[in-house]
Amino acid sequence: MSTTSPIEITATDAADQPERTPDLESLYRGFESELLVPLWTEIGDLMPMHPRSRALPHLWRWADLLPMAEEAGRLVPVGRGGERRAIALANPGLGGRPFATPTLWAAIQYLNPGEDAPVHRHTQNAFRFVVDGEGVWTVVNGDPVAMRRGDFLPQAGWAWHGHHNVTDRPMAWIDGLDIPFQYAVDATFFEFGPDEVESREAPERSKSERLWAHPGLRPLTHLAPTPATPLLAYRWEHTDRALTEQLALEREGYDATIEPGHAAVRFTNPTTGDDVMPTLRTEFHRLAPGTATAPAREAGSSVYQVFQGGATVTVGDAAWPVAHGDLFVVPSWQPLTVESEDGIDLFRFSDTPVLERLHLHRHATKEAVR
Amino acid sequence: MSTTSPIEITATDAADQPERTPDLESLYRGFESELLVPLWTEIGDLMPMHPRSRALPHLWRWADLLPMAEEAGRLVPVGRGGERRAIALANPGLGGRPFATPTLWAAIQYLNPGEDAPVHRHTQNAFRFVVDGEGVWTVVNGDPVAMRRGDFLPQAGWAWHGHHNVTDRPMAWIDGLDIPFQYAVDATFFEFGPDEVESREAPERSKSERLWAHPGLRPLTHLAPTPATPLLAYRWEHTDRALTEQLALEREGYDATIEPGHAAVRFTNPTTGDDVMPTLRTEFHRLAPGTATAPAREAGSSVYQVFQGGATVTVGDAAWPVAHGDLFVVPSWQPLTVESEDGIDLFRFSDTPVLERLHLHRHATKEAVR
Amino acid sequence: MSTTSPIEITATDAADQPERTPDLESLYRGFESELLVPLWTEIGDLMPMHPRSRALPHLWRWADLLPMAEEAGRLVPVGRGGERRAIALANPGLGGRPFATPTLWAAIQYLNPGEDAPVHRHTQNAFRFVVDGEGVWTVVNGDPVAMRRGDFLPQAGWAWHGHHNVTDRPMAWIDGLDIPFQYAVDATFFEFGPDEVESREAPERSKSERLWAHPGLRPLTHLAPTPATPLLAYRWEHTDRALTEQLALEREGYDATIEPGHAAVRFTNPTTGDDVMPTLRTEFHRLAPGTATAPAREAGSSVYQVFQGGATVTVGDAAWPVAHGDLFVVPSWQPLTVESEDGIDLFRFSDTPVLERLHLHRHATKEAVR
Amino acid sequence: MSTTSPIEITATDAADQPERTPDLESLYRGFESELLVPLWTEIGDLMPMHPRSRALPHLWRWADLLPMAEEAGRLVPVGRGGERRAIALANPGLGGRPFATPTLWAAIQYLNPGEDAPVHRHTQNAFRFVVDGEGVWTVVNGDPVAMRRGDFLPQAGWAWHGHHNVTDRPMAWIDGLDIPFQYAVDATFFEFGPDEVESREAPERSKSERLWAHPGLRPLTHLAPTPATPLLAYRWEHTDRALTEQLALEREGYDATIEPGHAAVRFTNPTTGDDVMPTLRTEFHRLAPGTATAPAREAGSSVYQVFQGGATVTVGDAAWPVAHGDLFVVPSWQPLTVESEDGIDLFRFSDTPVLERLHLHRHATKEAVR
Repeated sequence: MSTTSPIEITATDAADQPERTPDLESLYRGFESELLVPLWTEIGDLMPMHPRSRALPHLWRWADLLPMAEEAGRLVPVGRGGERRAIALANPGLGGRPFATPTLWAAIQYLNPGEDAPVHRHTQNAFRFVVDGEGVWTVVNGDPVAMRRGDFLPQAGWAWHGHHNVTDRPMAWIDGLDIPFQYAVDATFFEFGPDEVESREAPERSKSERLWAHPGLRPLTHLAPTPATPLLAYRWEHTDRALTEQLALEREGYDATIEPGHAAVRFTNPTTGDDVMPTLRTEFHRLAPGTATAPAREAGSSVYQVFQGGATVTVGDAAWPVAHGDLFVVPSWQPLTVESEDGIDLFRFSDTPVLERLHLHRHATKEAVR
Repeated sequence: MSTTSPIEITATDAADQPERTPDLESLYRGFESELLVPLWTEIGDLMPMHPRSRALPHLWRWADLLPMAEEAGRLVPVGRGGERRAIALANPGLGGRPFATPTLWAAIQYLNPGEDAPVHRHTQNAFRFVVDGEGVWTVVNGDPVAMRRGDFLPQAGWAWHGHHNVTDRPMAWIDGLDIPFQYAVDATFFEFGPDEVESREAPERSKSERLWAHPGLRPLTHLAPTPATPLLAYRWEHTDRALTEQLALEREGYDATIEPGHAAVRFTNPTTGDDVMPTLRTEFHRLAPGTATAPAREAGSSVYQVFQGGATVTVGDAAWPVAHGDLFVVPSWQPLTVESEDGIDLFRFSDTPVLERLHLHRHATKEAVR
Repeated sequence: MSTTSPIEITATDAADQPERTPDLESLYRGFESELLVPLWTEIGDLMPMHPRSRALPHLWRWADLLPMAEEAGRLVPVGRGGERRAIALANPGLGGRPFATPTLWAAIQYLNPGEDAPVHRHTQNAFRFVVDGEGVWTVVNGDPVAMRRGDFLPQAGWAWHGHHNVTDRPMAWIDGLDIPFQYAVDATFFEFGPDEVESREAPERSKSERLWAHPGLRPLTHLAPTPATPLLAYRWEHTDRALTEQLALEREGYDATIEPGHAAVRFTNPTTGDDVMPTLRTEFHRLAPGTATAPAREAGSSVYQVFQGGATVTVGDAAWPVAHGDLFVVPSWQPLTVESEDGIDLFRFSDTPVLERLHLHRHATKEAVR
Repeated sequence: MSTTSPIEITATDAADQPERTPDLESLYRGFESELLVPLWTEIGDLMPMHPRSRALPHLWRWADLLPMAEEAGRLVPVGRGGERRAIALANPGLGGRPFATPTLWAAIQYLNPGEDAPVHRHTQNAFRFVVDGEGVWTVVNGDPVAMRRGDFLPQAGWAWHGHHNVTDRPMAWIDGLDIPFQYAVDATFFEFGPDEVESREAPERSKSERLWAHPGLRPLTHLAPTPATPLLAYRWEHTDRALTEQLALEREGYDATIEPGHAAVRFTNPTTGDDVMPTLRTEFHRLAPGTATAPAREAGSSVYQVFQGGATVTVGDAAWPVAHGDLFVVPSWQPLTVESEDGIDLFRFSDTPVLERLHLHRHATKEAVR
């Protein structure tokens, strides 16, 4: 429930503040009582020279996350109301909220054998990425979609969806959503569906793949562009092959990588060639052994998960060795470098479409970073 | 400077929480130490059935604002560092921040005779609207633009701009910007320019108007679409005439108003026909005497200023009589009704382009509102 | 009615033809009987190094056209069946067809006092331009639009339209359409309406202008982009002012003209900022006294009409002095130069949107022309 | 070289012609001498109620075409000047020109063992479709692309390309281009390249496929939309699988076919989701055994080739049994029905993007056809 907040205009360390005379103090008290705030005391925080995110670079280790998810699997039932056994990354700079960055939600979700995560829908755009395991089918608008290691599974805002685990083993994966963004702009709608998924089938390939996963081919039944992708599974087999080919082409002398040893693909909406969802960009990056990326920074924030391999990652002033399943956050305008001796595969998601569609995106590479 | 926030997972009143056993408490403490937050304790706040903005409906009266701006004019110098003598509306639901809504900034700005507001530029999109007076020229990318009663003066992100008052009388106006939005998504860049405006000319019409203010005509020197409008002044004379014609056409039996007695125009970018700026929608509404609007609500937030006339405005559970210069806020999904006995002219701005471009916009009218 | 055409494969002067042995002759006869044509005998004509239009540069003098239109006004009734008293320019290179260029139709239309040109609609996009006179109202979808000297009056494909002369004097004007283009691609539909126009009103301003002719303002009743402009009259007063301002700005030292002394505006669709109609570009050009344009050529064809003033026009190998009302044709890729001692105002229309939207447009300026 | 055409205004059977008085005859002679043509004598032909194409429905049998191509392979060398051993379909209604329809070119091309078709480029958009055989690599901008049975191989305007046959057997295929369209609008440019292809490699997969043929995945090196597809081969294996899945989904009860028993895919540009090339639509249709399509007509023209199976095809007043390799033409607005007892696979190309991008496309189905 919203409540009225008091305004308090305090002395700031911003340069060139007017002298705090009694008249000025009186004016400031008047501002407070009328719910007014002067720009000149706030401009340094509100309008910095470049983005200075409250979010901090941070790393969450899979080795710490997974046991907690397992414990939650023992202690916390999944069902209507709580909806999902999902545990979100809370950026240490963001006031204890479950926000990986100011715009992005990232969580580990866990489903025991035989469990159903009940059906609902919401305006938030979402996806799942599977760093390990298999056995859960996510049922999106009635279409059961297998979730397996390395798969990327987008699910557009307002699509009905539930999950069920058809095996005798638990499964964990990560969820990415634009929850903080939609929370910030007050755009969120939510609706409950059935408590159990509509279909208990567990087909090898979803209907969406059977219609859409043919390169460059479009069914004549679906010719209008849609805001989000109609393809519900981007399989590891294809992603892996695309990355492998880029590095092979590079070795053969062709311009197929974004920098030496650095292959990358973007998951796209086949009806537009654009991002899979209006607010989320999702990509897969592979560094060949012995590769270091050039420092780069951009407006907007990202979350990465290590799929396989290892590297040393530097984000702003932080640096960590990273390994399988680890998740790290790159806040807006913080420079990022990844240096890998033995090679690494990285899944990435970001809020870049928000900034690009509103003409706010900027990036800087190499020399410009420092 | 960002600092680490503690996580605290507390009992919530959300339905269906698991029983707080010692094991669960221990798990929650583990979450806290690992910077994790479960969805099931937060979902009610994060993912409501419909937008429940922390922002509250609120009215600021011009009769209160203007004297404070005048007093600031006496006490607070304008110059480099503080940049502008602007006093922002702080929504009572938003924690004392100078945010009219979660995405919109609205402020009264005041410039004494002979003063210069120094030149700078920023990624924030901005505009000025003049409810009274004249005498200031805003100089945008070197082009001096007169500001007069009823004029709407957009100024795209990253355009250089300063203001100077060439008369012997002070002038006040309102500024609208997307500061809170860009702050939320960490997109803001800022750069200082000269301390004084580049041109002290005070022409009747700006160069931008001489090039662009011809209906349906485009100079062949400027054929590429631009993200923001190249037209720097939308004059009251044109706005007034357009609204007058709509009501006249309605009386003649044609479908020219959005509902009976309710004329409205949108300020648009002539290079695209779309909103004047990527993040801000700006409109002018006129109600004929004896008109009541049907209740309507939409996702996203708006700020209105009364230009002339009066009405009773109802926003959610709040209702106020409004008069010349008054500003009020309509938070996301709060129903709005305006009822005017003698007619009213209303300037409006909103964050709708943000929601529309990201496919998040929804609205409901009439019966659907309740 | 279509009839079968005989194929005849003849010796050509194309380089490198195979020797005409009896076997080859026999093969060619086989081709003919099977309705086949080899590329190698035709490639020179079909796939030239650059466009070699069959259309020729040509000039029609207003002093010759107008008397013929007047004579037609005496001899030829206007009414259902013939539909319009319009006399089309027939490019001498296009086989006697009424085609000014391979894609464009240009005609002088003439209406006697009191006459109605009956109502119909067609997929062809059309416009009228008035080089002299007034007194006719074109009624487009029921909206009477005054036609006066210097006005440009677009009328989108499939809009109902008729014209009536409300004065006691005849009036002539030119019509431009995409008839040859739509004929070439077999896209044309046509429907008859009433024999007389729906409205005999003769208002000073059309409803479309009252709704749309406000710079940068859009009625909230009409927010969807439309393929063609909703504004039915672009008045000379605005065009003249825009051109005057460009030349004045140039004199003041600003970059407002496309080359020294050469002002130009494009008529655009306010819902998109793009061309007024999907297949037709329309522009107005003004050369200050003493101006010569740099030679320029482009793929696609144009028709120009002199509105006022005079010049020497060079198109390819042709050159003519031109004066008030004269019409001339610039075929694809023919270089154009206009040199004016005393200044000239030129109305232009072209098929450029067809080429641009299909990514076929090319142009070359100055040195590149020869 | 263009030459001046005489104008001849003759009596027409159009209704409501004015009486041919001596004065009128004299006026008509005046029109002729001034290169003018009245609308009222021409309107019936120029502006019909619906498209009445001069092109006729026609069938070319593969059994007749292939032997002629083989004979051309014996008699006609391929090389610089003639450029290609291509034999074009000449619609019997189009005056003996090598135009399958007013906008489309279709030809059989034939290359002997070891031959090179020399490198050139042109603004015409082109593709190859292989109804039989293999052994030729088309080298597009230096990238060798294998051509095999069932493959669709687009090649955008202005791409360098040549072909070479690396086997000891000849190969035939069909070429589709927009030659007649670009000829009609005078947009064509052409440039010679080397006499031999740049690369004699014969890789299993082209570089374009290695970069682009991964469903929904886009290389980060190529993020800008391109007017034509960067994917140079759409393999039969994928097309076949997509069609098979649509029919299987239909049998399982899902809405995956455009009408019962009728599967269809469109070849698209993965950077936009739109047609593979700006002027050409290309599709593959499969009818299950026992399927008859509902009559349908559309503005714009198509060419079909039977890939496998057989059917009875009805186009307007013509009807033919069709078999492997046969090509037939559907002129604008002619109704088409295909009825297949044993099933049929049909490749189709059309000029629909031209009409759609210019807002001229119309279609009618079922009852509306008659």
